[in-house]
Amino acid sequence: MATYDIESFSQGLREHGLVIPTPVKGTYARGPVFEDIVRRFDALVGRIAKDDGAQELQFPPVIARTLIEKLGYMENFPQLSGSVHSFFGSDAQARELAAKVQAGERWEDMLEPTEVMMTPAACYPVYPCFSGLLPKGGRLITVLGWVFRHEPSDEPTRLQAFRMREYIRMGSPDDVVQWRDAWLQRGLDLLQGLGLPARSDVAADPFFGRVGKMMAANQVDQRLKFEILVPVISEEKPTATCSFNWHQDKFSSAFGIRNSDESKAHTACLGFGLERVTLALIKTHGFDPTYWPEEVRTQLWPA
Amino acid sequence: MATYDIESFSQGLREHGLVIPTPVKGTYARGPVFEDIVRRFDALVGRIAKDDGAQELQFPPVIARTLIEKLGYMENFPQLSGSVHSFFGSDAQARELAAKVQAGERWEDMLEPTEVMMTPAACYPVYPCFSGLLPKGGRLITVLGWVFRHEPSDEPTRLQAFRMREYIRMGSPDDVVQWRDAWLQRGLDLLQGLGLPARSDVAADPFFGRVGKMMAANQVDQRLKFEILVPVISEEKPTATCSFNWHQDKFSSAFGIRNSDESKAHTACLGFGLERVTLALIKTHGFDPTYWPEEVRTQLWPA
Repeated sequence: MATYDIESFSQGLREHGLVIPTPVKGTYARGPVFEDIVRRFDALVGRIAKDDGAQELQFPPVIARTLIEKLGYMENFPQLSGSVHSFFGSDAQARELAAKVQAGERWEDMLEPTEVMMTPAACYPVYPCFSGLLPKGGRLITVLGWVFRHEPSDEPTRLQAFRMREYIRMGSPDDVVQWRDAWLQRGLDLLQGLGLPARSDVAADPFFGRVGKMMAANQVDQRLKFEILVPVISEEKPTATCSFNWHQDKFSSAFGIRNSDESKAHTACLGFGLERVTLALIKTHGFDPTYWPEEVRTQLWPA
Repeated sequence: MATYDIESFSQGLREHGLVIPTPVKGTYARGPVFEDIVRRFDALVGRIAKDDGAQELQFPPVIARTLIEKLGYMENFPQLSGSVHSFFGSDAQARELAAKVQAGERWEDMLEPTEVMMTPAACYPVYPCFSGLLPKGGRLITVLGWVFRHEPSDEPTRLQAFRMREYIRMGSPDDVVQWRDAWLQRGLDLLQGLGLPARSDVAADPFFGRVGKMMAANQVDQRLKFEILVPVISEEKPTATCSFNWHQDKFSSAFGIRNSDESKAHTACLGFGLERVTLALIKTHGFDPTYWPEEVRTQLWPA
């Protein structure tokens, strides 16, 4: 599939049962074959990273509201946030709520904020778990987490909720940067080895508004964020399938994470967007994985 | 562990690294050993159900707001709901929002409802995908989904976000009830075969308020809901680890799902609460799975 066109790609995904539309943009169901690719790719990453000895944690798709506030998310990315609200009222208020719903009136103003928000990055819940001293040599954590970004779109690689396989490194600044650099090459090798036309580039997060433009420029200048890009719906604007973030001491300072010698720790993370990698494989090799090149199949479906 | 006590059980879970506390009740992190049990149990269910030929779909943890409205969730369970709100404002409003967050003032009133809410039951997103005629013999779908219920609690089996492995059957009323009955026995055999003191009982959903009490009584009278219960934090109030719901034509009527002969279809679902089964196994067999009985280990960790 050498041409890039959102509509025909989306149509192919639907016609092959790879996705099933739902009423809201960016929330389609993933079919059995799509899910098999997701799982196989995740397993391949796991095999590659096996000897690193990462500790696996699992977090729910919601996170403490206080954490979002503390990390400045509402200042930087308010447009992507998801705040979870619920009903705390009486019997009489519940009847009023029900009447509004049934009348098609706006009922959400009868709700109040809960203690949680949608998790906006799979690594966010990890850091507060490790306040205090790291073991000698630091720590390596892995998570597979659901991430929410409020950016409804018909573009199949831009989902409101998606899964990231992340690795999170905490340790001395040198160790952390070295680890990030090594994984950048490893990630490129992995995706190119699967036949994807992948390349890496320096990148920036989608900071909100005018001030955000400066923050993004600063992030690029400091080379804090890299992405591995693959053309999926456009050749000029390839899709980020993997991203690498060096946070310096942003998280370690917020949560008091220190090296074993009491020095300030740094953190970095990398994450594969599992749906995006899957879509990149489908775009590159075709809608039916049984016809994918043998050297790709043997890696994803080993004997 | 023959005695039942929330505090000592929670402490044991923490001390063995099975869970790691987070700032919000009912959202703890699951550690590597906990996750291994979750995965192994889910794989065992998959092996048992393999020949049924269920089609596997994957949905995100959020669902269309219009669906929640249509299914009457806000009338029946407003206290458990999770409505996702985000920021749609201008640069100037974003500055006002940021100032409120930094001042510790309430900032959530500057948000607006999005198109999505938290998924309150793993089977909900399935039904609208199958409007129209079913194939002859009906359909069988399976999903592993994150479910949200706003009921913050220190009780380790009562989570705000948890995973359900569900099977969903759509077809003729007879087929659907027979399938539900067969799985009720299969579920009991499975859990008892893992050494759990499991028993089944008729049950009701936690409908809200005074009217809700009548709805729940009606649900019990009609024997629409069954649960498989295992004592985890109390012997008198055992924990529901698996639930079976016969919806009659609730979902099929709402979404126009009909049998191949154009007759009205029925639907039923069953779901294993993966965290709850894991906690039941830990409570029954101990905090370290390497010491679990051989006949349990061989089922969960087959050679």
